[in-house]
Amino acid sequence: MTSPYTAALIIIGNEILSGRTQDSNTQFLAKELNALGIRLQEVRVIPDIEAIIIATVHTLKTQFDYIFTTGGIGPTHDDITSEAMAKAFAIPLILHEEARRRLASYYAEGDLNEARLKMAYIPEGAALIDNPVSSAPGFMLENVYVMAGVPRIMQAMFHGIKHTLKGGKIVESRDISVYLPEGAIAQGFAELQKHYPAVEMGSYPFIHQGRLGTSLVLRSEDIAQLEDAFAKVAGFIDKLGGEIRLGV
Amino acid sequence: MTSPYTAALIIIGNEILSGRTQDSNTQFLAKELNALGIRLQEVRVIPDIEAIIIATVHTLKTQFDYIFTTGGIGPTHDDITSEAMAKAFAIPLILHEEARRRLASYYAEGDLNEARLKMAYIPEGAALIDNPVSSAPGFMLENVYVMAGVPRIMQAMFHGIKHTLKGGKIVESRDISVYLPEGAIAQGFAELQKHYPAVEMGSYPFIHQGRLGTSLVLRSEDIAQLEDAFAKVAGFIDKLGGEIRLGV
Repeated sequence: MTSPYTAALIIIGNEILSGRTQDSNTQFLAKELNALGIRLQEVRVIPDIEAIIIATVHTLKTQFDYIFTTGGIGPTHDDITSEAMAKAFAIPLILHEEARRRLASYYAEGDLNEARLKMAYIPEGAALIDNPVSSAPGFMLENVYVMAGVPRIMQAMFHGIKHTLKGGKIVESRDISVYLPEGAIAQGFAELQKHYPAVEMGSYPFIHQGRLGTSLVLRSEDIAQLEDAFAKVAGFIDKLGGEIRLGV
Repeated sequence: MTSPYTAALIIIGNEILSGRTQDSNTQFLAKELNALGIRLQEVRVIPDIEAIIIATVHTLKTQFDYIFTTGGIGPTHDDITSEAMAKAFAIPLILHEEARRRLASYYAEGDLNEARLKMAYIPEGAALIDNPVSSAPGFMLENVYVMAGVPRIMQAMFHGIKHTLKGGKIVESRDISVYLPEGAIAQGFAELQKHYPAVEMGSYPFIHQGRLGTSLVLRSEDIAQLEDAFAKVAGFIDKLGGEIRLGV
């Protein structure tokens, strides 16, 4: 087994912490990274406070192969991510000529005001991340990828850079959902886990239309082991006689 | 201004990090805490790995007034939160008689198997958190509140303990959404922010039915300042002539 590639996501956003906005960037990024053979290992949601952004980047960037950030690169006074990143890396924030050119060609004559021009200030030496939605770019600095918070823009940015990310073996998954409570499955499931150490077996209770059930999820880089383990789990569930929940 | 009460949420869950499950506990808890005068200041999503759970609790419990955790207290082998908490606090995990009694009265005769009985093991000295949905309790240890991950159960648990939480002044908010891009608003909005330091002013771009717009959100403990600032922001938006987006 190769050592897996890992990633962390830093969501910079008071709007998530206040409950105003429901985050959806985590799930998008988790799935995309997984498909590239990169494991999202930690997510932190932090407020728009410079010292906290800097400390969080410092802590995480040596722990994971990739750090992604979302939020705080717009034109308003509460958009402080770019400046915080420049400080975190101790490099100057400069007017990036290519970023300025992109903004100038996106906005109508005279609309590139001072606030918008702020979005062309990028830490010196950073590479731009394209924004095909609204032009203002993200950027990458070492292993840190700074992206917008608006999901549609963040997703477009990610699609533009994902071919540059190096991943390892892809973790595949198989799952089965059954109308049986976890407690009825737990013991046999734990036995199966012991027999397949290369397969991560998780159990997640759900309530669907008032009925309690459990989703059993198997994940592994080793497809042969995964298929073998999944056949055993499916056989075990079949023997217990629970009704399978379809379409999940 | 009284010093605000703060909280952090630790989401223990491989299923969030793999993208399989969309988290909704953050938004629920953020809103509930806000209504109690407690500010959610950080969220961490971490994997079901004991050493990481312990390290995260150690780091956060001295930084915030309240720590909430969700996930990992069920009957299956991947439910390791209770044991990790006992280790984090260096106290034994014991069979809690009251927890056992609740499980015994919830399950039919003979159904309280070994796996289910695991849910009655609680760190010694912890106080139980009621689970009116499926009986297996959460628990509190010092300032750490350990709850289930299933949203319906987590919410029921939280409703049972929220009257015990001490909060400060409640942060109220006012917002207005307009079909104008952030860049058209940024400068005037920043000026208004300067005049109202007690009001936190945030700007959040959105895309609705293909149209770009901005939500301006004002938050403060000081209602008089908030109302005054909001009137000014509304007047500013009116002068810019943007169409208001209703019903958000």
